Amino acid sequence: MAYFSSLTPVFVAVLCIVLGFLLKTFLTKDKVTKKAPKSEPNPKPWVDEDLQDNTEINPKDDAEEDWADSESDVLRVPYSPLQLSEDDMLHCSQQFFVLMNKRRSVRNISSKPVPREVIDNIIRTAGTSPSGAHTEPWTYVVVADPETKHKIREIVEEEEEINYKQRMGEKWVSDLQRLKTNWVKEYLDTAPYIILIFKQTHGIHPSGKKKTHYYNEISVSISCGILLAALQNAGLVTVTSTPLNCGPKLRVLLQRPGNEKLLLLLPVGYATEDAMVPDLQRKSLEDIMVFI
Amino acid sequence: MAYFSSLTPVFVAVLCIVLGFLLKTFLTKDKVTKKAPKSEPNPKPWVDEDLQDNTEINPKDDAEEDWADSESDVLRVPYSPLQLSEDDMLHCSQQFFVLMNKRRSVRNISSKPVPREVIDNIIRTAGTSPSGAHTEPWTYVVVADPETKHKIREIVEEEEEINYKQRMGEKWVSDLQRLKTNWVKEYLDTAPYIILIFKQTHGIHPSGKKKTHYYNEISVSISCGILLAALQNAGLVTVTSTPLNCGPKLRVLLQRPGNEKLLLLLPVGYATEDAMVPDLQRKSLEDIMVFI
Repeated sequence: MAYFSSLTPVFVAVLCIVLGFLLKTFLTKDKVTKKAPKSEPNPKPWVDEDLQDNTEINPKDDAEEDWADSESDVLRVPYSPLQLSEDDMLHCSQQFFVLMNKRRSVRNISSKPVPREVIDNIIRTAGTSPSGAHTEPWTYVVVADPETKHKIREIVEEEEEINYKQRMGEKWVSDLQRLKTNWVKEYLDTAPYIILIFKQTHGIHPSGKKKTHYYNEISVSISCGILLAALQNAGLVTVTSTPLNCGPKLRVLLQRPGNEKLLLLLPVGYATEDAMVPDLQRKSLEDIMVFI
Repeated sequence: MAYFSSLTPVFVAVLCIVLGFLLKTFLTKDKVTKKAPKSEPNPKPWVDEDLQDNTEINPKDDAEEDWADSESDVLRVPYSPLQLSEDDMLHCSQQFFVLMNKRRSVRNISSKPVPREVIDNIIRTAGTSPSGAHTEPWTYVVVADPETKHKIREIVEEEEEINYKQRMGEKWVSDLQRLKTNWVKEYLDTAPYIILIFKQTHGIHPSGKKKTHYYNEISVSISCGILLAALQNAGLVTVTSTPLNCGPKLRVLLQRPGNEKLLLLLPVGYATEDAMVPDLQRKSLEDIMVFI
């Protein structure tokens, strides 16, 4: 009994160390739990919450699925280039620059109808873009229905007003004020078409398993460049917009699946007769090119 | 003394709780320290280590700097659209699709010289691309010097061999094997030009302060789409590549500043007479467009 009683302090000590550990663990957990909702103000408000590089990969799913694909080598065929003389190259490259240099972001878009076939050709052209491992990770949603266009306008204006008033900060808003840009987007009602460009963060195999889409955001942005060239070539105008944080609502409205994220939104049509644009200059060749 | 001695277990207990805390704190710290270098295998190996969305912002610097800019409203001028009849629009949009649809990623590039003026026109054309808040966040480095081209090849092949053998994983490599792609890039020596497209993560005001470049990666990718259209229009070929993790070494080689990150690398020239391309099909209009 004396032996036992002499052990008591040691026993208490061990018990206390255990208690100390438990208490500390509990407090640490508590801290973590408390920290989570107290999120820092977003240091990059222009990166859409819905638009991280969320390329999705599922190696376990994929490994098996793609085996057949990679076994069956793609046949190779001769490439038939355009055959232009040096003079023609010079002329063509000059003409194309003149054409593209007339492109401007135009917000005054007429309601005058545009033939559907022209839009089909333009989307087909965007679809010729290269993409990482030829995954073609794009979906172009073309909206002509006036009611849907108006719902898009409501969603975009509601979010954009919050963006301008809260998310973007004085700095960004003042950068845009120079361009007389604000959250009222009348063109979303008047333009005969709105093209919404979605990036597919992953694809889906016929079996239903996931397919990796490498560099999907870069690929879809490149295809948007080709789309802009096609619009300009057809005499149509647009304004390239990235409606911040409207992605999820617009995805639901347009019934797009969860692997598609809205990257860009383009109202498309003719410019109005009294259309105005900011008198901006472009950088000179010397300012954008370094020749070695 | 009896009183004091009866307190001993309590004293020991308190001491032990303190010790317990200290021990736990020490162990936790130790764990954190140990965890850091034991980094997880990168779950997204295709996102270049040097190529996160590292748009840089410096609101404190900017707020003052941009004030004058934002006060001085940009003048607005009338927009002069192209005036095409419906028939012309249909014809032009169809012709442009046919032209762009002949574009292929070509790896067999001839050493036949290409007039410098054509390249100038193509870079000028890329520079007409829209960009977030008209920041024009691009630098095109055009390399014609054979020695520099060879150094680029050495850097790219060294990194790409590591990519293929270690970073990319079986899945990605097998996806690319279908396209007969590997790390040997002969075209980097033979092509008369290599165009390296850098995104500027921020700009620099005349005063030396930082200027925010909103959506710089999307903007530069869009301009690359317009550049690809310009190349195709001039009868030239390229292969759009994203040399994984070569950015920092190439930036040093080409003496680009730290705010420029390599986004894309394009060897440019004529296709060789025996050029071959994989017999890939493009998705149909129905597979890429949703009409509402």
